Amino acid sequence: MFDIFEGDFKVQEETNISQAVVSRLPRYFRYLGDLKDEGVERISSHELSVRMNVTASQIRQDFNHFGGFGQQGYGYNVTYLYDEIAKILGLDKKHNLIIVGAGNLGQALANYMNFEKRGFIIKALFDRNTELHGKVLRGGIKIYPMEELENFIRENDIDIAVLTLPKAGALECSSKLVDNGIKAIWNFAHTDLDVPGDVAVENVHLSDSLMKLSYNEKKRFDKE
Amino acid sequence: MFDIFEGDFKVQEETNISQAVVSRLPRYFRYLGDLKDEGVERISSHELSVRMNVTASQIRQDFNHFGGFGQQGYGYNVTYLYDEIAKILGLDKKHNLIIVGAGNLGQALANYMNFEKRGFIIKALFDRNTELHGKVLRGGIKIYPMEELENFIRENDIDIAVLTLPKAGALECSSKLVDNGIKAIWNFAHTDLDVPGDVAVENVHLSDSLMKLSYNEKKRFDKE
Repeated sequence: MFDIFEGDFKVQEETNISQAVVSRLPRYFRYLGDLKDEGVERISSHELSVRMNVTASQIRQDFNHFGGFGQQGYGYNVTYLYDEIAKILGLDKKHNLIIVGAGNLGQALANYMNFEKRGFIIKALFDRNTELHGKVLRGGIKIYPMEELENFIRENDIDIAVLTLPKAGALECSSKLVDNGIKAIWNFAHTDLDVPGDVAVENVHLSDSLMKLSYNEKKRFDKE
Repeated sequence: MFDIFEGDFKVQEETNISQAVVSRLPRYFRYLGDLKDEGVERISSHELSVRMNVTASQIRQDFNHFGGFGQQGYGYNVTYLYDEIAKILGLDKKHNLIIVGAGNLGQALANYMNFEKRGFIIKALFDRNTELHGKVLRGGIKIYPMEELENFIRENDIDIAVLTLPKAGALECSSKLVDNGIKAIWNFAHTDLDVPGDVAVENVHLSDSLMKLSYNEKKRFDKE
């Protein structure tokens, strides 16, 4: 189980590459995408470091975990590096997602088109609320009753479940998802899940993030 | 500027308390809230550590940054500790928020009631889209034209701005917010902001989080 806010809360698993490095990969990928869009073909670790506001040594160390990517003195080939990081992140294949909990946040995520560009295809939403059943969102994505969840997972090759449920339902639901073979949970519920070690979890605890912002704002104010 | 995904990307500021410790405070606060709800009056660092799946030594170290809170041998008084952490996080006072960008995510956040319970009061949304102007969300929160942003900030004692804009508009908008005295930005735009050092920023880069999940899922699959 991994937490985007604090991986170091959890006992670190035996992995070759630390979660701190993994956390930085999407940011590299984002900056390389921008460079590609700007038509930049090569970039040195120094130039990239200035742009990203990190040290060149950090960049080289991070990339060395994956074989380095670059030729000394020539800089990195932007498109190659972009494609390699995409592969490392598993973005070279499509992922089928379901969203469990079709409230404001669940529907907002379903309507957000950018995930699809990266190969994350939202297949369906599920909710207990009968008034929502049958409602169709953009691109024909439908909201189904919770009772259809298990069949849908089995029949649609779903690999990622997004949990946008209230805290109370999240634990029970995550067990059901795991029992039906889900190996990755993107958890927006305001609670920590308790799942087997072979299930990947990323928590997005929005309230925690807002409280951290409040702390940092307050601290600056206290200083004045 | 602080990033919920990787504070260590940024040059660490001179602070007494590291962002790693700060990141853990909301989680303590969440668990203590649950304990309070369950009627638990006292808890030892050992009991809390089992519940939170961290070491008791980590808990004691974290709390020592704030004076310790506990009496040796007696455990922590749950309500006292909850209230103290609330104060540290700045939750003992109300925060007035605006949301800039009233698309799916902006409206979903505005409709999410739980922030208000913690004292984060959403006062208004702003958007360029004229079709949205005047629309009223739950609790009478209204969507205004972007042209009214600056006046609204000045007249309504706003301290936190939530950015739920596309990447392209986010940089320009953050400058405008800072020029008008905003000291805290909760940034959901898919880009890093460039703001003065006295402005607190918390990034919620949802795509980055999803990519990290994809990596961790893939890595487990590769092992099989």
